[in-house]
Amino acid sequence: MTDPKEHLIDWLRNAYAMEKQAESMLKAQASRLEHYPSLKGRIEQHIDETLSQQKLLEGCLDRLGSSPSAIKDLAARVAAMGQAVGGMTVSDEVVKGAIAGFVFEQFEVASYTALIAAAKTAGDADTQRCCESILPQEIEMGRWLLEHMPEVVAAYLERSRVGEDAKR
Amino acid sequence: MTDPKEHLIDWLRNAYAMEKQAESMLKAQASRLEHYPSLKGRIEQHIDETLSQQKLLEGCLDRLGSSPSAIKDLAARVAAMGQAVGGMTVSDEVVKGAIAGFVFEQFEVASYTALIAAAKTAGDADTQRCCESILPQEIEMGRWLLEHMPEVVAAYLERSRVGEDAKR
Repeated sequence: MTDPKEHLIDWLRNAYAMEKQAESMLKAQASRLEHYPSLKGRIEQHIDETLSQQKLLEGCLDRLGSSPSAIKDLAARVAAMGQAVGGMTVSDEVVKGAIAGFVFEQFEVASYTALIAAAKTAGDADTQRCCESILPQEIEMGRWLLEHMPEVVAAYLERSRVGEDAKR
Repeated sequence: MTDPKEHLIDWLRNAYAMEKQAESMLKAQASRLEHYPSLKGRIEQHIDETLSQQKLLEGCLDRLGSSPSAIKDLAARVAAMGQAVGGMTVSDEVVKGAIAGFVFEQFEVASYTALIAAAKTAGDADTQRCCESILPQEIEMGRWLLEHMPEVVAAYLERSRVGEDAKR
């Protein structure tokens, strides 16, 4: 028998590790991009959002009596997903990077959707509100990436066709 | 200088490998689920869709002069993503499985969105139509998984709270 609150804390820790992974992926991606300024700009905006989200999750964990030091050990639990998506992002190809970025946003969307349901079940209104404030930022970043996918693809193919550096 | 059609063929091969990965993940997930019949049923429906999508992609590749035997070698290119998500799916936990399933659908959504743009640029109307017929199935499967996430989470937490087998 496991209290819902135990699962909630566990999942919040995973979400924190996920946002740490997001930060390093987004920073790597933004620093690499050269020829796709609007994509780079949107990623930089989302780095700021990601840092705020980390603070919000830290607050939730503190309130639930979980120490920040315990969080570090759990980073490995999302490492498989993060490394795979990160590996695609480290690829020198802007289209794979955009796909990977979108996929990681959707990982976050699904995680916060599960967390909101878990917070409701556990009767933790503060955590619920916290996650409900983060979720729209992830949805919006994902929406933006998918909406701009066709223009990234078209620009990549055109640069590639004429022999210009297309990958970054 | 690279012709858009070369990228298109490359990405179609990746999509084929992705659907092979989807098939094995979905089958593993469906066979494991015991206590979540509506999730299991929806996954089984999507296995049928996935097999049809493989046939459609094979048709596109044949038409573009790419042999099916060449496809196998390329499976490794999506293996990192597939294995990571697959690894989460092989987890004995229905919530992580539902998240991983949703994330993989979004990988497919992003991939077909990029493919449609590439087919347009390459002037390949047949491939464009093929991918446009697949995309809504991936969107709908993803939508269903996210919509049902809260009830899967609630059921998992309740089964777990009372000490019943909750994971599958």
